[in-house]
Amino acid sequence: MPFKSALIVGAGSGLSASLAKLMLKDGMQVALAARSTTKLKEFADLTGARTFECDAAQVYDVEKLFGDLDAARLTPDVVVYNPSYRVRGPLLELDPAEVEKTLAITAFGGFLVAQQAVQRMLPKGEGALLFTGASASVKGYAQSAPFAMGKFALRGLAQSLARELGPQGIHVAHFVIDGGIRSTRRPPDPDKPDAMLDPDAIAETYMQTLKQPRSAWSFEVELRPWVEKF
Amino acid sequence: MPFKSALIVGAGSGLSASLAKLMLKDGMQVALAARSTTKLKEFADLTGARTFECDAAQVYDVEKLFGDLDAARLTPDVVVYNPSYRVRGPLLELDPAEVEKTLAITAFGGFLVAQQAVQRMLPKGEGALLFTGASASVKGYAQSAPFAMGKFALRGLAQSLARELGPQGIHVAHFVIDGGIRSTRRPPDPDKPDAMLDPDAIAETYMQTLKQPRSAWSFEVELRPWVEKF
Amino acid sequence: MPFKSALIVGAGSGLSASLAKLMLKDGMQVALAARSTTKLKEFADLTGARTFECDAAQVYDVEKLFGDLDAARLTPDVVVYNPSYRVRGPLLELDPAEVEKTLAITAFGGFLVAQQAVQRMLPKGEGALLFTGASASVKGYAQSAPFAMGKFALRGLAQSLARELGPQGIHVAHFVIDGGIRSTRRPPDPDKPDAMLDPDAIAETYMQTLKQPRSAWSFEVELRPWVEKF
Amino acid sequence: MPFKSALIVGAGSGLSASLAKLMLKDGMQVALAARSTTKLKEFADLTGARTFECDAAQVYDVEKLFGDLDAARLTPDVVVYNPSYRVRGPLLELDPAEVEKTLAITAFGGFLVAQQAVQRMLPKGEGALLFTGASASVKGYAQSAPFAMGKFALRGLAQSLARELGPQGIHVAHFVIDGGIRSTRRPPDPDKPDAMLDPDAIAETYMQTLKQPRSAWSFEVELRPWVEKF
Repeated sequence: MPFKSALIVGAGSGLSASLAKLMLKDGMQVALAARSTTKLKEFADLTGARTFECDAAQVYDVEKLFGDLDAARLTPDVVVYNPSYRVRGPLLELDPAEVEKTLAITAFGGFLVAQQAVQRMLPKGEGALLFTGASASVKGYAQSAPFAMGKFALRGLAQSLARELGPQGIHVAHFVIDGGIRSTRRPPDPDKPDAMLDPDAIAETYMQTLKQPRSAWSFEVELRPWVEKF
Repeated sequence: MPFKSALIVGAGSGLSASLAKLMLKDGMQVALAARSTTKLKEFADLTGARTFECDAAQVYDVEKLFGDLDAARLTPDVVVYNPSYRVRGPLLELDPAEVEKTLAITAFGGFLVAQQAVQRMLPKGEGALLFTGASASVKGYAQSAPFAMGKFALRGLAQSLARELGPQGIHVAHFVIDGGIRSTRRPPDPDKPDAMLDPDAIAETYMQTLKQPRSAWSFEVELRPWVEKF
Repeated sequence: MPFKSALIVGAGSGLSASLAKLMLKDGMQVALAARSTTKLKEFADLTGARTFECDAAQVYDVEKLFGDLDAARLTPDVVVYNPSYRVRGPLLELDPAEVEKTLAITAFGGFLVAQQAVQRMLPKGEGALLFTGASASVKGYAQSAPFAMGKFALRGLAQSLARELGPQGIHVAHFVIDGGIRSTRRPPDPDKPDAMLDPDAIAETYMQTLKQPRSAWSFEVELRPWVEKF
Repeated sequence: MPFKSALIVGAGSGLSASLAKLMLKDGMQVALAARSTTKLKEFADLTGARTFECDAAQVYDVEKLFGDLDAARLTPDVVVYNPSYRVRGPLLELDPAEVEKTLAITAFGGFLVAQQAVQRMLPKGEGALLFTGASASVKGYAQSAPFAMGKFALRGLAQSLARELGPQGIHVAHFVIDGGIRSTRRPPDPDKPDAMLDPDAIAETYMQTLKQPRSAWSFEVELRPWVEKF
């Protein structure tokens, strides 16, 4: 692993924990940021990952997060942006405030985090930014306009940054996670455990992407279970 | 033309004026909405189009706009959403407030306008929503992350609405305008006048799209000058 | 209509007849080419369209066709390529000879026809090439590998030609026809006649595309019924 | 590595040799197939890979190849399809026979090889088919119509097979190799060795893709050098 220190924003989901475990195993430092870190405490105590409270959609919070990371000598050379928020339903039933929140958390926060991260990566000419997308990143589903807006926007951000920052040594990648991720809250059918995405398997592909030498980088990476319709 | 009354949001550009002229010529009523209607006055006086002040990114403004249209018996069965805002530059030089504004005007306003419009179209089971995109809607260019975010988000919105509303009789279309639109402010090379998009020509394709019977609707329509690289 | 003379290859389907009728009505000369012209006779007698036998996948046939058109003073400035062939089924049941035939008729014939057509258009610096695709042009469906191969290839051809020939004045467009076209052989549900594509409606959009001035050309045009899932 | 035996078709290029080396190192058996195996002899002697002569575009050759592999107890559970052929130039200068050859080698051969391979994989309910694409797989470049036709067709094949065979346990993946691969024949700029794709780096991502558990498979994988424009 060419990187030393990772920040996972939107930590808490199975994917974040799986990724943190693989990173720690590879000898990396790991910082986890979430709006509330209460749920992360047990995991942090167990693994040695550090936790930080941060609302990624708030300019001040994100600046403070990176200042705190700097102070703790945890300035990341890998940043993973996971947060998303969604509200579903027929167009007429959607609350505009919820749509704004979806855009703020799913896309605008990605911009804020990228800006702070890249400010620290550019002087070194290396680093990696990984954005977690969904099938909604490439297809706008009926009755899910807000999530489509947020995830499309995040993909637009990632594409633009890949084109700007790649030639400056920073690897930007966007993951299209197509299918449900299994979790204790959302367990797979016991007869078909691998019909849902295993967070450890997703995390493994994130790790391999980070290990790619810059002569052969992936930008968009798609992952789906073998039985997923697409 | 199967429609009677149009609202063009983000009026002022050459495209809006061209479109308004064609609609008026086809016997439609035309309402133009813009943040400031000062510049629209001359055109309105000349053509009989009505003008309305509205910041499309503000919930209250958009509700008021549609209320005013209802009161004026101008409830639209065609709504065109043109507004966009952009700020360019290297990631590190971008002002987060400007990024928020880009998302608000370019994408969130599209949601607000669509919601008000569709509320009035659904009971009749017909209507059309046209969204104006750009090459940035499908490709995130370097040093243009905010515009990519906004235009990608608008496309996500349009796709989602097309899938939700098409089967309810509402034609949703998204236009990828790929190239510069000529205007007095941005005149074409006199030797190659058609190397830039003619707003009248774009408007003509919008009109033809509106005239499509529902057995053969276009969702995404792309337009570019013959010499444009793509 | 800026064009005078059209050739429709793969004539016979409802789309070709609808298109020929609109073209003739607009004062264009129309030549119809098909592997067998027997079925075209009645239509030709009725409308004055000329018919030509041609297997579009055969180099010699296509050269002869254009030679005959030249001799008959029917050299086309618009060429529409419709032919397709398909064989469906699980991979293991597909006959390789049928796959070759699918590629030959669906894609290679498009190349042959384009080459002969463009040879005659380039000296004049104008003309139009329209290629008829399908949803299979952009999505490879299960158990339909040959058709996906053929239609993807035709789209690759069309994209390449659009980029090469656009700046030389030739309008290349590719139509993604997404949904079933209604016909006497395949009638629509009488309760939902517009749930299938009306060939007249498709033809109307082809005509509008031909009429686009070169300052604002569409390359890819998609058409689907209002109720079609996509 | 969950697989035991690989067949690389279109062997000879740097990518095939890099891939063969990694597979052999992982304990896999490797068979290399090419139209001429003369150039492969040295590599085969050195590494223990077996070589087979086969024109992948010929039904008989491909059947014989798989029969020979069966006889040699080398029936592959991984098949990589690399062959491509291209002819470039303005449309009017292209030889139709060369276009046919491009389609035959680049796409039709992929079908033939997939059919033989899958016949042997399906009874076991596992296996992997990897198709090597290019930037021309997703964008038809000017003056390169034949290659666009061939590579688009191969992608259509891969998509269709992924949808058909994924739920039957066979992992189908399509690689969009975007950029020049460095080789002795085409060496990189000594000052920027990683400005071209390193075949070892590409091969590493192929290997990681093969190792993905079926709960999280990639279908399309793109690889490009950090400085590549896209």
